[in-house]
This record gives sequence, structure tokens and C-alpha cells, in this order.
Amino acid sequence: MERRPVSGSRNERLNEKPAPKAVVGRVSLYLRQLEALQLEGLNKVSSRQLGEPFGIKNAQVRKDLAFFGQFGHPGVGYNIDDLISVLRRILGVDKDWPLALVGLGNLGRALLRYRGFRSRRFRIVALFDNDPRKIGQFYEGMCVEPIDALPQSLSRHKAILALLCVPADSAQKVADQMVAGGIQGILNFAPVPLAVPQHVNVVAVDLSIQLENLAYKVQKTQDEISRAS
Amino acid sequence: MERRPVSGSRNERLNEKPAPKAVVGRVSLYLRQLEALQLEGLNKVSSRQLGEPFGIKNAQVRKDLAFFGQFGHPGVGYNIDDLISVLRRILGVDKDWPLALVGLGNLGRALLRYRGFRSRRFRIVALFDNDPRKIGQFYEGMCVEPIDALPQSLSRHKAILALLCVPADSAQKVADQMVAGGIQGILNFAPVPLAVPQHVNVVAVDLSIQLENLAYKVQKTQDEISRAS
Repeated sequence: MERRPVSGSRNERLNEKPAPKAVVGRVSLYLRQLEALQLEGLNKVSSRQLGEPFGIKNAQVRKDLAFFGQFGHPGVGYNIDDLISVLRRILGVDKDWPLALVGLGNLGRALLRYRGFRSRRFRIVALFDNDPRKIGQFYEGMCVEPIDALPQSLSRHKAILALLCVPADSAQKVADQMVAGGIQGILNFAPVPLAVPQHVNVVAVDLSIQLENLAYKVQKTQDEISRAS
Repeated sequence: MERRPVSGSRNERLNEKPAPKAVVGRVSLYLRQLEALQLEGLNKVSSRQLGEPFGIKNAQVRKDLAFFGQFGHPGVGYNIDDLISVLRRILGVDKDWPLALVGLGNLGRALLRYRGFRSRRFRIVALFDNDPRKIGQFYEGMCVEPIDALPQSLSRHKAILALLCVPADSAQKVADQMVAGGIQGILNFAPVPLAVPQHVNVVAVDLSIQLENLAYKVQKTQDEISRAS
């Protein structure tokens, strides 16, 4: 794998292969913890402190960060300010990401008010729905446009990412319209896989898979308890 | 690692260490694909066909399934009916999981109507909220109880898992009440880590982390395109 230094940071390395989803997810958590510690006025942090609130071991923290470069100093720890700015850049959250929200059912309306998006630099800039009672109405200061306007309207709003919250049976059609409008990434809440061109990225949020994962873990714990007794 | 055969299946092995979250997530996808093929009346499937709709390579499919046992036959593929019943048992979705839903804001109400849960054997059996306008009201045939009733009420409903959809600042207090009521697993939608006893499992659904993962992938694709041009 080719690695080359990045301007602005001697110790960061550009890993051309994307990091696995699990690593990126954990690094997002470390970034939150760093920001919380920065708010408390701290300067330095150990890998143990970074992982502790999430139950992640310090060896894992070091391994995850090593995917992106060499940041810490043995026995001293990480400089909080430096690590925050490097991780924000690596994760791409050092810039604004304008989002389109498509589908204003219960889930879509919940996402519209989800504080977690706003506290990062994800900003919903356009709303789309096919319900005639919703089109033309204002939510959080934005006017709802019809879904068929997606191909024309997305570039006007400069939306790069989209939240797909429509029912499963119309998800692929809406995804096609998003792609036609120049969307580069889709967070898919519909419980169906989407077919998109290679340059478009999809992250699927399948809530029943998360629930199955929980059921699996609970069953494993029940097995352990019954074996121990 | 100790492995021992499980009654009812010669080829399944009980892996006492839980499978990684990513493996369990992919196996959930294979199970869906198997169920779809079963509905179409098919009997056999190859590892390629199992992974294809999700963009997962056949080698990965074989590796994931091998975590749980030896199911396929080289050149023949997998028997669909057999693999469905084994995977359902492994994932713990061969039985009913009664759920409590706590917090009936937009997200909670979206989850209440989420078809994906009902199509698996996850069944919401009890609703809790602290809003006096919601307590005593009926949603989907269930009466909303106050959150303070959780410790007494959960065992009466035989709820084992809980969906936690309250605001971040009350999440830990509500989780404590869930644990006091005997809940064994929590699907946590509040964007804060929860402290729970070791016998209780938590799966966190942090939507902004999923969005950060998408932004990271889009940024990587943008980098690749600009390097290629």
C-alpha cells in the first residue's frame, strides 16, 4: 500500500485504502471524548482515558489511531487540540456537509430535529416528500418540495449527502432521482439494499439488524449464565 | 477456544466467544436473502448468490458462515431451508423477543410503526413516556405508562429488550430504571454512552456516527477521483 506524507502534519499518513467502518466508528467516539475533555480545559489525554467511557481498551485505541498516523508520545499521551484537528480532517467533519432529507414521515421528522447532526457540521438544507399535504409546508424554516423535483433541485441547494427515509418500495426510485441530482452519499433508512453507481456511497441504517445484534448478544449472555450455574 | 457440537445439528459448532458485530450484521443480511429465495421456491443457493445483493464477496460469505459451523457443500451450495433454521437459531430470532419502547417522541413513534421489527420476531409489548399528555393514551392498542413505573411494570409485560428513545440528559436515569425492571438488552438511540451492569447488553444506534462514516467514505471517493484526474 502506498503511503505518503500529508502537508500540514508530519505525523499523519494518508492511508489510501479507506479505514474499516468499525475503525471509523470508534474514531468518531474518540473525537467526541476529546471534544468533551477540551471543554473541561484539559490539554493531554491517554489512550486509556480516550477509550474508557465506551468500554474500549487502550490497546484498541492505539491500534485504531495508528491506522491514520503516529500521534501520541509514550508516557505523555496525546495533545488534545492537535488530535481533534487531525481527526476532524481525517473524518471529513472539518467542513460543512449540506444534507437533503427525503421523506417526512415520523422517522424523517425525528431526524430533522436530531440534535446530534447539528452539533457536528451536518446541516439539513432541503426537504422533499410526495404527500400533497406536506408539499409547500414549512418545517424548521424549510419549504417541502415534491420528490420529483430532486434531480433539478439538489444542485441548487448544493446538497452533497441525502437522508433517505421513504418506504422500502419506493426507495430505489428515489435513490435514482438523488443520483441524477448529483448526490454523492446516501444514508439509507429504508430496509432494502440500493443499487447506485460506483462513485456514490451508501451507508445503510437497518434498525432491525441492530436489534438482531442485540438479541444475539443477550442470548450469548443467557447461555454464559446458564453454563456458569 | 473450546468448541462442542450442538444437539440437532451435526455441522454447527458452538463458538463460545460471541461473533464480532460486523459478522452478525452480515449474517442477518444473508438470512434475509435466504428468506427471499425461499419465498421464490428455491432450494439451493451459492455463497455468491447470498452476498451479491449486498455487494459482499463470496469468500467473505463463506468466512462469515464458517464462524458458526460447516454448512455448505462444495459445488452444490447451501440448502436454503436448513441454513435458514440454523441461522435463525444462532441469531436468536427463532423465538419471540418482547420489547418495551421508552420515549414516544418522533423517533419512538417512528419505531413503533417500523415494519422491519414486526417482520422479525421483535414485538413491542409496552410503551412508556413522561409526558402527561401521552400517559394513559393508546398507541397501536397499547396504553402509555409513566417512565417511573418501569421497574414494576417491565416484568409484568415480560419485556426482555428495550428501545431507549428519550433525550440524552435523561438516558442514564431511564436505563437504570430499565435495569431495575430486569431488562437484559437495550437498543440505545440517545447519543450518550450508558453505564449498565455486566449482564446487561447495550447496542448503541448513534445516527451521527453513521453520517460521519458516510462523510468519510464520500471524502475518500472525492480524493480518489481528484487523484485519478
